[in-house]
Amino acid sequence: MPTPPVPADLEQFLHQPNPSVIATVDSDGRPHTAATWYLWEDGRLLVNMADTRKRLANVRADPRVSLTVVGREDWYHQVTLRGHAVSIEDDPELTDIDRLARHYTGDPYPRREQKRVSAWIEVESWYGWAAGQPWGR
Amino acid sequence: MPTPPVPADLEQFLHQPNPSVIATVDSDGRPHTAATWYLWEDGRLLVNMADTRKRLANVRADPRVSLTVVGREDWYHQVTLRGHAVSIEDDPELTDIDRLARHYTGDPYPRREQKRVSAWIEVESWYGWAAGQPWGR
Repeated sequence: MPTPPVPADLEQFLHQPNPSVIATVDSDGRPHTAATWYLWEDGRLLVNMADTRKRLANVRADPRVSLTVVGREDWYHQVTLRGHAVSIEDDPELTDIDRLARHYTGDPYPRREQKRVSAWIEVESWYGWAAGQPWGR
Repeated sequence: MPTPPVPADLEQFLHQPNPSVIATVDSDGRPHTAATWYLWEDGRLLVNMADTRKRLANVRADPRVSLTVVGREDWYHQVTLRGHAVSIEDDPELTDIDRLARHYTGDPYPRREQKRVSAWIEVESWYGWAAGQPWGR
């Protein structure tokens, strides 16, 4: 599998507000998935969760994650980023979730009463598909 | 988390050709994800992979999977199905991958030289979101 940095066209793809699914692992080894917003910044992924989320407990116990991004306009463009959380921090002012919400919806995050937590994910390897061919070949 | 059977509107959603991402676990416990076609039939999921795929080796070693489906027209409708593979069978005539390809593209699968393998997944639990609310509440 290729390692970072990602090629320029993939960088551009990752900057779009695409749907994505993040996987973590439960304490009994079972995979867990959930759709998520992400931001791609400086070659790292930012994700943000309500503090009640199972995936937050999972990533605190085992920081390894895999995230598959599918193209919002053409989901046959897709990339999987594998890595691990390098920081997990409370987001008391909702700064990060507001950035994510603005990126995806144009507006700040509506649910101001939630406790939110941010995780930065460092990418170790990636693979992608573009219209049936491996991305970047 | 709710257990099957899923409600009627979710059943209908799952019958559409939606993007989805499947997670398995590597032998070292690391989560692995990939975008996949699926068919929802009789309360079970059919997926099909080229026999070279990492996720096939993973599911043979540990049948537990999690699959998140996002709405093809509105990805804020989404559902996660957690379960395990109950059968893993070669698809030598490409019967299953053709059914999947027709469901998603209208045509049979184009790459006839591939060796393909089918897995049927029995769902143990599910959770979904519809426009910011838990599905089914």
